[in-house]
Amino acid sequence: MTTASDVIERTAAALTAIRERHPLVHNITNYVVMNVTANALLALGASPVMAHAPEEVEEMVGLADALVLNIGTLSSSWVDAMAKAARAARRRDCPIVLDPVGAGATRYRTESARRLMREGRPRVIRGNPSEILALNGGAGGTRGVDATATVEAARDAAMSLAHEWLDVVAVTGPEDFVTDGTRTCRIRNGHPLLGRITGSGCVASALTGAFLAVDNDAWLAATAALIVLGRCGERAAAETDRPGTFGVRLLDALDAISPDDIRASAKIFVS
Amino acid sequence: MTTASDVIERTAAALTAIRERHPLVHNITNYVVMNVTANALLALGASPVMAHAPEEVEEMVGLADALVLNIGTLSSSWVDAMAKAARAARRRDCPIVLDPVGAGATRYRTESARRLMREGRPRVIRGNPSEILALNGGAGGTRGVDATATVEAARDAAMSLAHEWLDVVAVTGPEDFVTDGTRTCRIRNGHPLLGRITGSGCVASALTGAFLAVDNDAWLAATAALIVLGRCGERAAAETDRPGTFGVRLLDALDAISPDDIRASAKIFVS
Amino acid sequence: MTTASDVIERTAAALTAIRERHPLVHNITNYVVMNVTANALLALGASPVMAHAPEEVEEMVGLADALVLNIGTLSSSWVDAMAKAARAARRRDCPIVLDPVGAGATRYRTESARRLMREGRPRVIRGNPSEILALNGGAGGTRGVDATATVEAARDAAMSLAHEWLDVVAVTGPEDFVTDGTRTCRIRNGHPLLGRITGSGCVASALTGAFLAVDNDAWLAATAALIVLGRCGERAAAETDRPGTFGVRLLDALDAISPDDIRASAKIFVS
Repeated sequence: MTTASDVIERTAAALTAIRERHPLVHNITNYVVMNVTANALLALGASPVMAHAPEEVEEMVGLADALVLNIGTLSSSWVDAMAKAARAARRRDCPIVLDPVGAGATRYRTESARRLMREGRPRVIRGNPSEILALNGGAGGTRGVDATATVEAARDAAMSLAHEWLDVVAVTGPEDFVTDGTRTCRIRNGHPLLGRITGSGCVASALTGAFLAVDNDAWLAATAALIVLGRCGERAAAETDRPGTFGVRLLDALDAISPDDIRASAKIFVS
Repeated sequence: MTTASDVIERTAAALTAIRERHPLVHNITNYVVMNVTANALLALGASPVMAHAPEEVEEMVGLADALVLNIGTLSSSWVDAMAKAARAARRRDCPIVLDPVGAGATRYRTESARRLMREGRPRVIRGNPSEILALNGGAGGTRGVDATATVEAARDAAMSLAHEWLDVVAVTGPEDFVTDGTRTCRIRNGHPLLGRITGSGCVASALTGAFLAVDNDAWLAATAALIVLGRCGERAAAETDRPGTFGVRLLDALDAISPDDIRASAKIFVS
Repeated sequence: MTTASDVIERTAAALTAIRERHPLVHNITNYVVMNVTANALLALGASPVMAHAPEEVEEMVGLADALVLNIGTLSSSWVDAMAKAARAARRRDCPIVLDPVGAGATRYRTESARRLMREGRPRVIRGNPSEILALNGGAGGTRGVDATATVEAARDAAMSLAHEWLDVVAVTGPEDFVTDGTRTCRIRNGHPLLGRITGSGCVASALTGAFLAVDNDAWLAATAALIVLGRCGERAAAETDRPGTFGVRLLDALDAISPDDIRASAKIFVS
């Protein structure tokens, strides 16, 4: 059975692997967070690329070590490109992370997320509680991209979704929850300021892509990404209590964080 | 008659209301400023959402407390989506702010701004002097998104536009000017560094949306937004004289600013 | 014959000219870097504008002092708009800079970059070694937007491309290399942190546009932009060793850098 200390050691090892291998993470993501996503991946040690043209997504996926799909500012041509990239990724076993931003807020978002689940079979779906509830068929109650539902309320939905899709669901909030339908991990690292800057959820999904590129256990990869981002949030918050400076320091922390810091500070509960 | 001290008290009350209610501000805006707009709204206490797909804009407007339209990087499909969102907003009395970025610089921008004025009947139009002059039919002389005309030159155009549209025009520059065709307010808060970072005008428009979501008096809402942004510019400039750090500190200030700071520092002239 | 000290004096003079004239730099660039590009141009003293609609690109080019084309997140409608803008720029002698992001990574990028070379006859092409090798017909070996080839390997390709196109090729990396096919300049300013933030190459291209707007010698303009950006990287790195803060300080440095600092710190080799 996997223990918390196993997870922490694997996280530390994966962090080192990212910095040695600089995996190429192909993002088809939203306009709001493209810059911070690319900078977060670079700070961590990965190599980001953004490409969405139907003429090139298959070829770009062929170079990538992971594909991250994010529907934050979706439109029909972008969702089509994501689906095309996802099919190419499946053919070559390039792992996919799906961030269903705003699922439940509009029918179009819920349906687009479900389409990408069907066509891409993502290894990890990472969302806030409202999004995960919506994808599991619940009313969700998403209000825009707010997380108005609690992580607790979304746990059963996450377990059910993970069972149905035979893969990993990560729910983020004050406490994060990651499950593959059997194993679960709760992560208590993090800081409220992560909710005061745009894109911290999107960054969590992108970092999950980087970890998935170096560790094929999707449950571990999602957990590792959330430990690292949560811990970096704590480090950034130790230097400021304001959101502008926090966003800058968060990137600094993604660069500075070490395996030993992970070992000393991870607050996780595995079952 | 409204006095400066009435305006200041209403501004302080609206700021508190934003932080209590976290109004959802739906932005259809330009690629350059999406990130800073979202972060500025979050720092202030509002909830931003960005969505432009024709498949969902009406449904998203149905969740929103205000709609902000910004033509900074317009294209035909985006302007169509803005018009569709605007019509939906009118049907349900969701207030609209229009930022006519670059009106006067190209015919396409002027015409698109006018189309959105007709179809959306925005409660507030916020622009620089050149843009306001152009919308009022003048030559404008906009050079890209520069404000080469002065606020003084644009005052009559603003009064005339406000009369014609029966609503509020806000002209920003070294001194801001807000009018509903009857009441006027000049705001002397602010700092030249606001003109050295991209998107400060767009942020002014987005913040106006947040204030309009909690105070139905559009003249007051636009004035309140410009007092708050101007004062935050002063606070940020007290900590740095360089634009990179200024942009970060401006977000910090939007989070830190208090009703009492507004009361102590607003520099406005009402008539 | 041009000496290093000639180049440095011309760079200092061009920097002063940018701050006096605020040339309008029209960018059709990628979503990831639009914000940082606009902020970098503003910090330097130039006026950025972003516009890509086919309805307006010709008119906007008519206002611009330089046009910067960047294919980082290309799609067919954007490449068409870039080509339309490029043709308009040629007709009126508005100088063009091309940033062929990811050329060599996918066929679509290589072909799009070549199309823009043919239709726009850019005065400067600025890329990393892989991109320049790919445009010169080599295999390139681009891995996404990584610069896996060395500047040394790309020098011959740059000379050959410059000869063929009768204009300037700038290759950036740990040491930058600029040639017009006859004159060459190697620039040793810079810092590894420039490679740890997204968009530093794109910023180099945009700054080249600003310098080209005030100095018609394209070889000089590209060299000047790379000296200034490299030196600003050094200044930013003197204040932090982390990428988030570095990105902020880089903008500060673009605002702060003076002609005298250029004279005291440029590390260039002209032949």
